[in-house]
Amino acid sequence: MKEAADYPHWYDFTHPAPELLKKAVYGLPEFYRSEIASANLVANPGCYPTSAILALAPAVKADLVYPDIIIDSKSGVSGAGRTLSLNTHYAEASDSVSAYAIEGHRHLPEIVQELQSLNPKNALSVTFIPHLVPMTRGILSSCYARLKEGKIAEGARGRDELKQLYADFYKAEPFVKVVDMPPQTKHTWGNNFCLIYPTLDLRTNRLVVISCLDNLVKGGAGQAVQNMNLMLGFKETTGLEALAIYP
Amino acid sequence: MKEAADYPHWYDFTHPAPELLKKAVYGLPEFYRSEIASANLVANPGCYPTSAILALAPAVKADLVYPDIIIDSKSGVSGAGRTLSLNTHYAEASDSVSAYAIEGHRHLPEIVQELQSLNPKNALSVTFIPHLVPMTRGILSSCYARLKEGKIAEGARGRDELKQLYADFYKAEPFVKVVDMPPQTKHTWGNNFCLIYPTLDLRTNRLVVISCLDNLVKGGAGQAVQNMNLMLGFKETTGLEALAIYP
Amino acid sequence: MKEAADYPHWYDFTHPAPELLKKAVYGLPEFYRSEIASANLVANPGCYPTSAILALAPAVKADLVYPDIIIDSKSGVSGAGRTLSLNTHYAEASDSVSAYAIEGHRHLPEIVQELQSLNPKNALSVTFIPHLVPMTRGILSSCYARLKEGKIAEGARGRDELKQLYADFYKAEPFVKVVDMPPQTKHTWGNNFCLIYPTLDLRTNRLVVISCLDNLVKGGAGQAVQNMNLMLGFKETTGLEALAIYP
Amino acid sequence: MKEAADYPHWYDFTHPAPELLKKAVYGLPEFYRSEIASANLVANPGCYPTSAILALAPAVKADLVYPDIIIDSKSGVSGAGRTLSLNTHYAEASDSVSAYAIEGHRHLPEIVQELQSLNPKNALSVTFIPHLVPMTRGILSSCYARLKEGKIAEGARGRDELKQLYADFYKAEPFVKVVDMPPQTKHTWGNNFCLIYPTLDLRTNRLVVISCLDNLVKGGAGQAVQNMNLMLGFKETTGLEALAIYP
Repeated sequence: MKEAADYPHWYDFTHPAPELLKKAVYGLPEFYRSEIASANLVANPGCYPTSAILALAPAVKADLVYPDIIIDSKSGVSGAGRTLSLNTHYAEASDSVSAYAIEGHRHLPEIVQELQSLNPKNALSVTFIPHLVPMTRGILSSCYARLKEGKIAEGARGRDELKQLYADFYKAEPFVKVVDMPPQTKHTWGNNFCLIYPTLDLRTNRLVVISCLDNLVKGGAGQAVQNMNLMLGFKETTGLEALAIYP
Repeated sequence: MKEAADYPHWYDFTHPAPELLKKAVYGLPEFYRSEIASANLVANPGCYPTSAILALAPAVKADLVYPDIIIDSKSGVSGAGRTLSLNTHYAEASDSVSAYAIEGHRHLPEIVQELQSLNPKNALSVTFIPHLVPMTRGILSSCYARLKEGKIAEGARGRDELKQLYADFYKAEPFVKVVDMPPQTKHTWGNNFCLIYPTLDLRTNRLVVISCLDNLVKGGAGQAVQNMNLMLGFKETTGLEALAIYP
Repeated sequence: MKEAADYPHWYDFTHPAPELLKKAVYGLPEFYRSEIASANLVANPGCYPTSAILALAPAVKADLVYPDIIIDSKSGVSGAGRTLSLNTHYAEASDSVSAYAIEGHRHLPEIVQELQSLNPKNALSVTFIPHLVPMTRGILSSCYARLKEGKIAEGARGRDELKQLYADFYKAEPFVKVVDMPPQTKHTWGNNFCLIYPTLDLRTNRLVVISCLDNLVKGGAGQAVQNMNLMLGFKETTGLEALAIYP
Repeated sequence: MKEAADYPHWYDFTHPAPELLKKAVYGLPEFYRSEIASANLVANPGCYPTSAILALAPAVKADLVYPDIIIDSKSGVSGAGRTLSLNTHYAEASDSVSAYAIEGHRHLPEIVQELQSLNPKNALSVTFIPHLVPMTRGILSSCYARLKEGKIAEGARGRDELKQLYADFYKAEPFVKVVDMPPQTKHTWGNNFCLIYPTLDLRTNRLVVISCLDNLVKGGAGQAVQNMNLMLGFKETTGLEALAIYP
């Protein structure tokens, strides 16, 4: 987040070096590739923001949707880190689903800041609710927004246009794949891909985008390596084409 | 569903006895208790509709929200039945989350029909997306809608009013509990309860309701027993008072 | 355990009230029903010993096997209790199996003491290795011992004799079931049964017994209630007749 | 298996080309590296035999143990293949453990044949019981046998000697690791290693060896690639140093 004043509310601490905030670049290579390459300080995005921003960016940037946006995310347990807590005890987490941080998750402002910057005139109203799911890795985000009229074709043809728009948007990206079927998080196990499935709910004229990634790779250390490659002038995909798995 | 004409589209068959549709009562005791008690034919609700309708009914009936409604549901694998398919194979379903039936799940019309009947003037626009989660039992539905202005207090006080409205709505119900913390599906393992947590996203003035139940009990055979008890004049809770198994 | 002197080695503490050890009754109703009924102090058995002792008792008591006994047990994560540790963190425990306490688990002396008391002349040599399995509840013990010659019939007829011997041994027991197929722990989910499948490996003339139970019920609180019922003169099965939850 | 006559009993079919059996080499590179390199036909070992044979070979070959051997194996669900069956349905397989094929698993003769060939004079008596565990990948085998007297030192020093013997046995092997702590299957997720932990139960003078591997890699396709590399004269580890994961 760029505003030091927002840190106490969202992160429960005062930023110790607010002068650095202006120099930091948001480490999402899909949007800030050249800035990252010349940066001294890169803020690695959270796992939820990576999945949500990549899912919604093409539609927000193209001004396809009204500002009311719902992001319903489902995360595996490793998203909570290795710190021990009752929530991550096997007997609590297994065979159960729950929502949490309903009153405002710390990743929300990051999501809003980045999406808003893609379309500054359209003041967004985003609700983001994370859920804990009994699996080790993976995040799946389901995103919902109402289509503005007249932006893309009506009916099934609109779906095709939408997919084309997403495919074009990410066509040069090595780690974002626009897919033709709803993806599952297992498809991203241990790799650095974000899979995105954009579609329309034709009955209600609503955009629905499903995205998924491995929170420990594209949503974590993998993306950090991708940024490091850019900063050091290496090939962006170095070390990210096949990965060991643990846990 | 009440209209025979809708069956081929949603269920892929022509209703064989359309004359019975008028006599059938929708088996949600919370809304049709007296009709069920005198009915000869009761249509047991699906698992998704039970969780979604109970979550949204108080708000829709009180006309608190605009008609744009998102229902994002997460179901365990037993929701798919015992039929063998690759989707329910352990190695496919474990450690993974996915969305499915995005273009229109067969439970959607049932949800719309029942919510609409609670507030006929407000034509609803509902998107319902089910997800498959790696657990055996349980459904958690996260429901989103924007609040109409002036219906309840602003700010945190609105949350309290909302909870009171839900608590009043269900105060006589033996199997619906309005809870103070976001519930998890494990809390309903093996019992006939539907747990409902209504709250507000104050930043966006949006209603968020989380509900959960065991799809094989309140969302399945348990509710069928509840209806049978009503039809036969037994005490409604007979055979349904077993405690939760936890964890 | 009956000897105060053994406590420091196995349990890492000096027994604070060794005079009570003589008065304590081992709370396995299948063997000490009358003693429990008149006892003031009952030691509730561990989950592993309950499964292992019930599995082997009929064969040891009938002197069917040589003293070399292997007990290979598989336990769900709740066996480790609610204390937080890395071993019980979801991301560590899920999708993985491991052996632990290979150099001597604290439940071993309890198993040996009770089995030995059923056949004091045959000095047992027991190896017991527990394993952690990715499930919440349940213990399955696989027990192995070589048959003494001439005790039961050879070949398939021996299997039948063995099953009959086990069935007779437990015929009056409300919570032990000798079953005809290898059981799975899910069959005991939430109930107070111990299921036992005795058979022979005919090629090697070896006894193989598979037993399973819910470590939180028959292997835990359920058995404690069973003992309490006996001590207070209630019907032994009071509060323990709930059906299995399956799946 | 080398004897055509054994096929109907163990595999339920008559071998269609018995003349080829003599030419086939058993594809365990740790024992038949040079034969594999010059073979035209290699029989890829099953997943259970790989884990069991590698665990016991050093002890059997060194004549450390009596012929009574117990192998208790725990396998993830992918061991059953992709064929649909109720056993592999998520709702059946999750949260449960069971033994199966107790009367004789088809992998047993392969295990006996190979172990026996390492020490032909000591007629082995092997009981092998496989178990189904709720995880996708992985096999852990726990192996038990009584030590012959005088072969290695008594007490804790014997443990060290045993570990040294195993370490020496496998010191040139790229994919077998003798480890100092009991391993868990998750350590082998997606890689071609077999991890082996040999130790002694000092109270009973018994050898206990725990081995684990990924049944889809070292216990399956990974080992097949290793054999192919040998047959084609490639570096043995080619393509096996980092692997994609699915499922």
